[in-house]
Amino acid sequence: MLRYAMIGGGPGAFVGGVHRRALALNGQARLVAGCFSRDLEKSRVLGAELGLDGDRVYATPEELARLEAGDIDFAVVVTSNEAHYPNVKACLQSGINVMCDKPFTHTSAQARELVELARERRLVLAVTYTYAGYPMVRQMREMIARGDVGEVRFVNCEYPQGWLAEPLETTGHVQASWRADPERGGGTLSLGDVGSHIEYLVPHVTGLELTRLAARLDSLVEGRVLDDNGVILTEYDTGARGMYWYSQAATGAVNGLKLRVFGDRGGLEWFQEDPDHLRYTPLNEPARIITRGTPDLLPGAMDYSHTPAGHPEGWLLAFANLYRSFCDTLATGAAPDFPTGEDGLRGVRFMEACLESSRGDTAWIEVGGE
Amino acid sequence: MLRYAMIGGGPGAFVGGVHRRALALNGQARLVAGCFSRDLEKSRVLGAELGLDGDRVYATPEELARLEAGDIDFAVVVTSNEAHYPNVKACLQSGINVMCDKPFTHTSAQARELVELARERRLVLAVTYTYAGYPMVRQMREMIARGDVGEVRFVNCEYPQGWLAEPLETTGHVQASWRADPERGGGTLSLGDVGSHIEYLVPHVTGLELTRLAARLDSLVEGRVLDDNGVILTEYDTGARGMYWYSQAATGAVNGLKLRVFGDRGGLEWFQEDPDHLRYTPLNEPARIITRGTPDLLPGAMDYSHTPAGHPEGWLLAFANLYRSFCDTLATGAAPDFPTGEDGLRGVRFMEACLESSRGDTAWIEVGGE
Amino acid sequence: MLRYAMIGGGPGAFVGGVHRRALALNGQARLVAGCFSRDLEKSRVLGAELGLDGDRVYATPEELARLEAGDIDFAVVVTSNEAHYPNVKACLQSGINVMCDKPFTHTSAQARELVELARERRLVLAVTYTYAGYPMVRQMREMIARGDVGEVRFVNCEYPQGWLAEPLETTGHVQASWRADPERGGGTLSLGDVGSHIEYLVPHVTGLELTRLAARLDSLVEGRVLDDNGVILTEYDTGARGMYWYSQAATGAVNGLKLRVFGDRGGLEWFQEDPDHLRYTPLNEPARIITRGTPDLLPGAMDYSHTPAGHPEGWLLAFANLYRSFCDTLATGAAPDFPTGEDGLRGVRFMEACLESSRGDTAWIEVGGE
Amino acid sequence: MLRYAMIGGGPGAFVGGVHRRALALNGQARLVAGCFSRDLEKSRVLGAELGLDGDRVYATPEELARLEAGDIDFAVVVTSNEAHYPNVKACLQSGINVMCDKPFTHTSAQARELVELARERRLVLAVTYTYAGYPMVRQMREMIARGDVGEVRFVNCEYPQGWLAEPLETTGHVQASWRADPERGGGTLSLGDVGSHIEYLVPHVTGLELTRLAARLDSLVEGRVLDDNGVILTEYDTGARGMYWYSQAATGAVNGLKLRVFGDRGGLEWFQEDPDHLRYTPLNEPARIITRGTPDLLPGAMDYSHTPAGHPEGWLLAFANLYRSFCDTLATGAAPDFPTGEDGLRGVRFMEACLESSRGDTAWIEVGGE
Repeated sequence: MLRYAMIGGGPGAFVGGVHRRALALNGQARLVAGCFSRDLEKSRVLGAELGLDGDRVYATPEELARLEAGDIDFAVVVTSNEAHYPNVKACLQSGINVMCDKPFTHTSAQARELVELARERRLVLAVTYTYAGYPMVRQMREMIARGDVGEVRFVNCEYPQGWLAEPLETTGHVQASWRADPERGGGTLSLGDVGSHIEYLVPHVTGLELTRLAARLDSLVEGRVLDDNGVILTEYDTGARGMYWYSQAATGAVNGLKLRVFGDRGGLEWFQEDPDHLRYTPLNEPARIITRGTPDLLPGAMDYSHTPAGHPEGWLLAFANLYRSFCDTLATGAAPDFPTGEDGLRGVRFMEACLESSRGDTAWIEVGGE
Repeated sequence: MLRYAMIGGGPGAFVGGVHRRALALNGQARLVAGCFSRDLEKSRVLGAELGLDGDRVYATPEELARLEAGDIDFAVVVTSNEAHYPNVKACLQSGINVMCDKPFTHTSAQARELVELARERRLVLAVTYTYAGYPMVRQMREMIARGDVGEVRFVNCEYPQGWLAEPLETTGHVQASWRADPERGGGTLSLGDVGSHIEYLVPHVTGLELTRLAARLDSLVEGRVLDDNGVILTEYDTGARGMYWYSQAATGAVNGLKLRVFGDRGGLEWFQEDPDHLRYTPLNEPARIITRGTPDLLPGAMDYSHTPAGHPEGWLLAFANLYRSFCDTLATGAAPDFPTGEDGLRGVRFMEACLESSRGDTAWIEVGGE
Repeated sequence: MLRYAMIGGGPGAFVGGVHRRALALNGQARLVAGCFSRDLEKSRVLGAELGLDGDRVYATPEELARLEAGDIDFAVVVTSNEAHYPNVKACLQSGINVMCDKPFTHTSAQARELVELARERRLVLAVTYTYAGYPMVRQMREMIARGDVGEVRFVNCEYPQGWLAEPLETTGHVQASWRADPERGGGTLSLGDVGSHIEYLVPHVTGLELTRLAARLDSLVEGRVLDDNGVILTEYDTGARGMYWYSQAATGAVNGLKLRVFGDRGGLEWFQEDPDHLRYTPLNEPARIITRGTPDLLPGAMDYSHTPAGHPEGWLLAFANLYRSFCDTLATGAAPDFPTGEDGLRGVRFMEACLESSRGDTAWIEVGGE
Repeated sequence: MLRYAMIGGGPGAFVGGVHRRALALNGQARLVAGCFSRDLEKSRVLGAELGLDGDRVYATPEELARLEAGDIDFAVVVTSNEAHYPNVKACLQSGINVMCDKPFTHTSAQARELVELARERRLVLAVTYTYAGYPMVRQMREMIARGDVGEVRFVNCEYPQGWLAEPLETTGHVQASWRADPERGGGTLSLGDVGSHIEYLVPHVTGLELTRLAARLDSLVEGRVLDDNGVILTEYDTGARGMYWYSQAATGAVNGLKLRVFGDRGGLEWFQEDPDHLRYTPLNEPARIITRGTPDLLPGAMDYSHTPAGHPEGWLLAFANLYRSFCDTLATGAAPDFPTGEDGLRGVRFMEACLESSRGDTAWIEVGGE
């Protein structure tokens, strides 16, 4: 069984618990060390709850990295965004493999440095774009790869949420406050938080490579400095085109990530709030509803599917699937099938391009290449 | 009972029959004359089927306009788009009120001329933006007007169809051929055909006035000259923002007009393929499904609702509702509550602005004003 | 063009207007005479509104039948249920074809008499089980007939409504009052009103013949004498089995007629509130959504489909389809493809069997045969 | 941390893995011993994979019970149904608390004996009616308890599956074979497998107590001896009525457990395949969609909800919730909030009553009392 340490994920930090539960579900790795909070006392309390040895709870990530190198197989970095860069760097420098939460870093220079560091040290560096872990997202990817929709012509990906439709950052709401703070959010609020998922998902599923974009970032809620909504026009290497819409001010939306792909021989649609189904519309035929857990699944999707059809899986199991691939690579050297540091870098460069485009009144920006 | 003539709508022209059935449903007007086709013989055969006097079937719209003026209350112009302008003009010049199919005309100069002509002659000139006739569209408009969503911040309106995902225009398909012909289509294919509905619907429902847009028109199907897909970024007089997406190459989409409005106190969503329901999400409360035919309807919506809740109404009844308002105005002088020539003009100017923006690589174009 | 008279359908009687609109939509028949109300003055006012000659508005159905025989092609009987029998009888005795609203009569003896009378006089006698007029119901029937689900094993048909969840009959509500009155309702409230639709639809769609039933009729609302809910176990000639549930006290249900058919090679599901779609689940394959207006429709369904896919048709057009078949038979002698008096008789016998079973504590009752 | 042993759940036995993953998710208990298979070698291999000490893998449940008593806090019994009784008995006799899979036992005499044994020994005996672990099922229960639907008048609960629409038991399919074997299945196939969930869920959610039932059990698939479909009419202590339908031969159905409750002030509907939403229809108001993870949840539902709204939870988390309550009771003596042996007994008595009724041609059977 692999051993891991967690950096971040202290009391009240929702996502840390998710990472721990996903790993527990898989049963491939166990938590052995942590630096959960800037407040060592809080870290210690949580460490004790989680059954850690007291001397493996650390005051700083750097200390953890230095002292645990060799005793752990990987570290999970789930701090707030601005701390990803130093924490991942500390781990990599000590020779520790890393799973980092998304968005990866504030600047592409930081991301590039971390990717190069991992490459030099031959370490595994991964980023948790969770939605890639859903079986039906894999199904979609495999169906497109084998030509079920023909050549992809247009992609429409949207991700509306509504929880920031009010200025929660002015009310002391913890999550909202650090995300909406220009210093800590990395220049974006919702682009980093939800738009980044779109950016990863589209090429992952379709195989398209983004070449050009034009973005308008909006601050819909009065008084908000960063973006809480945005629209991005896209063009891809094959000539295909697309549009992205993300929002956290879409009053009444919940967690509405939806990906629609239109090819010359069919279309596909997947909606995150109903993740076990995929709508497939072959040209001039009735729509088909493909259901997780049935023999209609292609191999990769089947491999990610755990419970029988109609017994809904969900977000946590998608998380677990990502970790399973990650741990398989660590344990057996299996080829990576999870979002990597390179993907994280590409995501940061995308955000920089969107910000540049939006400052230029939705100017077109070339992306791609190195 | 009012009397009307029809120009266009000959054999094989689907939409002419729809206008006639909508008018028959209402029982307010009866067809008394027609010039259904360029081929007089075909016109005569149809006229006979429809019970017209043989001498009230005409060889040309001009002849009809000249000889029927005074004997009819209005003319319905449902020819192919490029003939709207001369036919409407002939009618107006003869003093005949007109209901014209959309999109209105090829150029805004034509549209402006017709609007001014109607104004001078004090004639009623209307344009059939059908979707305004749905009860739940009225409900949405009334709910927004009375503040149920607070101030509108963002509008997302999409209208994907898939029937032109193949190059039908190269196969002799009648509808596809004239629409995709640059000469006859007025410079756009799908922008005029479906995008125009979005353009009308958004300000109609929200009360917002468009001030600026940036459009990218796409020809997704190989070999197609005109647009079959497009994305438009929008800004409104209040500072609200929006995005429109229309397509006729969205493989597998059927007739997916969807309007989502997000305000600071709630959101609303309506989907044309399920027209009797409206999803209303008041801020921080459970979503509510408002159903046509229930006491939850506001007065204008109630007035457009004819069958009990759960007994679906549909597209033809929306058409009938528009005609009912139009006939009420003709019969009783009631204030117009239907899309007018001014709306048609605004629509043509919108299309011109989109074409200009797209030619300028999605340049921002100021619209609005005169 | 055919000419018809209407008996019933006076001011405030909702369904009369529906019949008139459905006929107007088709344009095959025009209203020429009527006895709309027991109150001649009210009849006259409505007749004038509808453009009838004053002398063709009658004080009694009998008078209408006597004086209009020969001048009309058919009569539409849309009075309250208890008056169906005398009114239909008067028409048939005068040699007038009849379309009668459902449920047909109070007793099977009455129904049998009318059926025999029509047979003797070689008159067309039809009953408006509206839901048979939906294109996708025809699609379902044709798919089953050609074997798309294999042999039918089980049928589940439910029809919940909620509008009688309150004791409206005690509040002066007109519709509720006569329906809930044991004298006028014919021994049942909701069994006649909605259960009757299930009874007709199942054999119509599946081809199964009912042989045995066991019913429990419930009066869920306190103080109500007649049934407002019921469950019926069924068995058919092929050995197939089924269950029916109808209700008008299902708080929150709207008009939820749903038919599910399970065969050894596939299943089918149709829901009246979304009438343009059919869910087809071939054994061991993904579910397919068949959409009205697409080339996937079989010929009979296509014949009933009028607007393009995604342009919703609805209840009124289903009504119109029934009338079109009826008028075709009258005008051209086309084979009947609409619910007939025999169907109405079978429906009344079904209700009698349900009442008998329920009185016998859900005893099994043999049905079928003559 | 609690320690548990597993009896059953060997290689290929799907549900054992589910229990283990659910327990791992919670992190309250760890697996320390097992008798996973009748084949000790297979047990040992799995035990090793799961990290057990070799000497804590046993040849028989009895041996496990005898030797582990005192060293474990509870045993999980997930063998095939016919072995529940001896295995649970062995555990209880050794003083071990038990979580047993459903359906509980073959006969009510067995169930009663186990319940009494647990009572005498003051042991905790629970049964995994999984669906009670869903947050929105708890929400439904709490809403009904506080009167949101008023007095419950009618309950419709259905649970169709389609996976036994073919005679899989004749093809060597493992799961199908033992379930369909009259010797091993306990006299029922689908009544025990899926009908049992309905039986538990209805009183759990509504608070109603079943007093009388009439059942027809069907064998729809040719050659099948046991039931694969059934309809049950029900009556409750308050006078409320209901109907249950379960099936495993409903071709195309997946795992369609749906519960609809109708009261005099509102209705509620929950569908297991979309478990995070609840449809609530207050009388004469728009339907409301209540979403897991929002502030609309009542306390018990909130307590079972782990991920934010729109991040779907699913079946495995429902399982985990049941185990959390069970472990809380063991660890802290918290009042049981999970299905108990008494519930299991009631379930077996229900099945016996259904079988008796069905043998008596759907005769009414009194149930309830002791």
